[in-house]
Amino acid sequence: MKPTALIIGGSQGLGYASAKELALRGFNLMIIHRDSRASNEEITQKFDELRSFSVEVTSHNFDATRNDKIETFITQLQPDLQFDLVLHSIAKGNLKNVVGENALTPNDFQTTIQAMAISFYTWANQLVHHQKMKNPSQLLAFTSEGNSKVIPQYGAVSAAKTALESIMKQLAVELAPYGIRANCIQAGLVDTKALQHFPAYKQLKSYTIKRNPYKRLTIAEDVAKVVGLLSDSAARWINGSIIKVDGGESLV
Amino acid sequence: MKPTALIIGGSQGLGYASAKELALRGFNLMIIHRDSRASNEEITQKFDELRSFSVEVTSHNFDATRNDKIETFITQLQPDLQFDLVLHSIAKGNLKNVVGENALTPNDFQTTIQAMAISFYTWANQLVHHQKMKNPSQLLAFTSEGNSKVIPQYGAVSAAKTALESIMKQLAVELAPYGIRANCIQAGLVDTKALQHFPAYKQLKSYTIKRNPYKRLTIAEDVAKVVGLLSDSAARWINGSIIKVDGGESLV
Amino acid sequence: MKPTALIIGGSQGLGYASAKELALRGFNLMIIHRDSRASNEEITQKFDELRSFSVEVTSHNFDATRNDKIETFITQLQPDLQFDLVLHSIAKGNLKNVVGENALTPNDFQTTIQAMAISFYTWANQLVHHQKMKNPSQLLAFTSEGNSKVIPQYGAVSAAKTALESIMKQLAVELAPYGIRANCIQAGLVDTKALQHFPAYKQLKSYTIKRNPYKRLTIAEDVAKVVGLLSDSAARWINGSIIKVDGGESLV
Amino acid sequence: MKPTALIIGGSQGLGYASAKELALRGFNLMIIHRDSRASNEEITQKFDELRSFSVEVTSHNFDATRNDKIETFITQLQPDLQFDLVLHSIAKGNLKNVVGENALTPNDFQTTIQAMAISFYTWANQLVHHQKMKNPSQLLAFTSEGNSKVIPQYGAVSAAKTALESIMKQLAVELAPYGIRANCIQAGLVDTKALQHFPAYKQLKSYTIKRNPYKRLTIAEDVAKVVGLLSDSAARWINGSIIKVDGGESLV
Repeated sequence: MKPTALIIGGSQGLGYASAKELALRGFNLMIIHRDSRASNEEITQKFDELRSFSVEVTSHNFDATRNDKIETFITQLQPDLQFDLVLHSIAKGNLKNVVGENALTPNDFQTTIQAMAISFYTWANQLVHHQKMKNPSQLLAFTSEGNSKVIPQYGAVSAAKTALESIMKQLAVELAPYGIRANCIQAGLVDTKALQHFPAYKQLKSYTIKRNPYKRLTIAEDVAKVVGLLSDSAARWINGSIIKVDGGESLV
Repeated sequence: MKPTALIIGGSQGLGYASAKELALRGFNLMIIHRDSRASNEEITQKFDELRSFSVEVTSHNFDATRNDKIETFITQLQPDLQFDLVLHSIAKGNLKNVVGENALTPNDFQTTIQAMAISFYTWANQLVHHQKMKNPSQLLAFTSEGNSKVIPQYGAVSAAKTALESIMKQLAVELAPYGIRANCIQAGLVDTKALQHFPAYKQLKSYTIKRNPYKRLTIAEDVAKVVGLLSDSAARWINGSIIKVDGGESLV
Repeated sequence: MKPTALIIGGSQGLGYASAKELALRGFNLMIIHRDSRASNEEITQKFDELRSFSVEVTSHNFDATRNDKIETFITQLQPDLQFDLVLHSIAKGNLKNVVGENALTPNDFQTTIQAMAISFYTWANQLVHHQKMKNPSQLLAFTSEGNSKVIPQYGAVSAAKTALESIMKQLAVELAPYGIRANCIQAGLVDTKALQHFPAYKQLKSYTIKRNPYKRLTIAEDVAKVVGLLSDSAARWINGSIIKVDGGESLV
Repeated sequence: MKPTALIIGGSQGLGYASAKELALRGFNLMIIHRDSRASNEEITQKFDELRSFSVEVTSHNFDATRNDKIETFITQLQPDLQFDLVLHSIAKGNLKNVVGENALTPNDFQTTIQAMAISFYTWANQLVHHQKMKNPSQLLAFTSEGNSKVIPQYGAVSAAKTALESIMKQLAVELAPYGIRANCIQAGLVDTKALQHFPAYKQLKSYTIKRNPYKRLTIAEDVAKVVGLLSDSAARWINGSIIKVDGGESLV
């Protein structure tokens, strides 16, 4: 029987690239995404491409950052469905300075931390509670260098990333008795739609290319490949780790 | 003219010990605290003790973790009041496992992160917005080893501490042009009321005494003394730092 | 043509387990080891086991921590030989306290840092200088939690591990133009011969089993499997990283 | 009776600035330095300036990085002399790339790590062995952002700094029973003579000024002030810590 992966945020960026890599490795996929009707056709095509790898792909279009939606969704899953891998790939944060006219509000912090960190907990907690995780299985989420480096306007996302990593570590320890491990991948800067919303997008992009030891940005496939490696049983002892996949960018 | 410190959470534990140290160093104090009527007398006595150092002490009893209360409070401050030091000392978190009957809920994460991390931002953001911070001045908050170490039932507090540190760093960089620096003190385990709520309190206490290179717990005065040092203008170039004050406990 | 790996310290422990994993993945192996004549037969048998995977195995018995020996060895390699992977697996350090009768001497630090850290540089530097590294290829070395945690009597090894990681990072950045990446694996506690020399061996072993979220020690195969994953081209963007492979042990 | 500080590397840069700060705080000083005869007059003048604070200053001109010299020196100290503070301030490293014509040799690593890291151990070990440290007292050394960041040509110094920090932590734990604590200060970039030897000096300087949240370099006095704070008994519970004194430079 094929293994099954749940991709939370799987219609674009790192999530979609990872879905493709996992399909290639023979995973059936359940994809959660949030897209407008206007993009329906494009998304359908993308998911069909995944099916071309001879795996089953189901998709669900709803806001995967809302605790109530998550709970409802999980309680309605098929009774015998269990996941081998759950990948959280949600980039949804407020990008503002901490001071000035349009500064981050406390509410901006709350919603960003909810979307990018706490929702990872909600998924994990509910999946375990409803016995939807196999033994062994793995929880995986994406973090970034914002976990330690200060980038103007990135304050709320930075806080969310550190909270996410902290939650991942707690899950890694407390879920070990259930055979569930948890890890993060710290990707280098990828030219995603999320990044393009960043005010200093162009500047950040050219700075990063110059800075990276390999003089290029990280591409989604670089990261997806490592999602693939971590999905391998050979990675079974990697637990509670943050794997940097950035070509060495964060060192300089 | 005497310098003025705002202590958020100053009626007990690290906050009160720091208030005493700052009074000793000649700071006028404004103390925010949240205490029941029953403890009125005891609190009054404690604040009177601070006044014995010949400094002015005002106190305000309200929930310093609520964004609306914070905003209202700051807008009502005397027009010419400005702070030299703002110390955030709020320990208010949910202590539960991440799995099982009484597991942490998403809401537990939200309230803990709001109380221990985002409220620090709200205070900083509003104080700066209403020009209540001197140039130079300092924002200071307490963190703990939970920033990196996993402790059962400490998951929500750990996430809050990492978010707090992240917020502190962002403030340190973005508020530099205003002459406002920001730092955290990472205290070793202190036998506070907050700790006594911890389910594994006794075990954690005896383990820590054995573990600490000096074979004792951290006491509030150890930490308060360093708050005092950081309040000195000699510390002006310490910005965005996390100062460990634990006797070396976190190394072993 | 089969890829080729150079294993420095490949007759036992993590090095030998990694050699086996790489043989299984189709790597020809060149193994450097240092063993007495008495163990000749045992070693021969072990290397024959590697050959059973239908790969070529050559072995060289000399002190791989001596700069002069390294240089001589590399200059005498076949002109057209180039490596895809170089794994440094040398555990040779002085285990003593920093104070007391039998304390670590400055010379103990020098020899331990030479053996476990600088020799990694010497190998890398000479291999690059003599064009023995393919493009792309990878340098890999083992580190441990001693990089940040203080363990009595482990002082010289700790210093060597931090120096090793620092050297790895420098190589990761400066050798990127040559298509050579560099990484470390931070293994959990493995019950190797090297560990058995540790004065507090039994205590450390039972403590670690209790501490590890999976309630067992790390075994050499856990780590070797990850060497295998990192040898995969899918890991090409992992550069300058320290991959923890310890079941989550270092988090608690 | 006045406290006494031993400054290893105290005729210039951070060491001399710290000596001045400690003199101001009433410490008698013993200064180890290595200077040519040509600079005799200048050095004499500098040490006389320290005496103007009404403290005793003795100086010894020899190579403080050589283990034999250190041992000899310590055995010849007055029998009843004991130090309250020992500050290691030695910047003496090889600045070269890891590849190319003039690459770092293994010997460059050895001498740099000996000078900047192991010599700190030798001093500490011998001072303790010969009962030259008071109870309580403190060992202090300077580190830099090179502990984690890769800077071209800085490879040997980086490795030395990480080894130094590791040694400091080990001393912090193992010397606690003797009442001796150990800490490092991580200074931002200071325009010292040592820095001026750096090939990319000008570039690094202008980049750092732009990068620092306060848009200036760290000056020796910024750091010396914190040496002063750490010499205060109020800092007694800071042990095994790395205190960043860089205006927030390392965050961005």
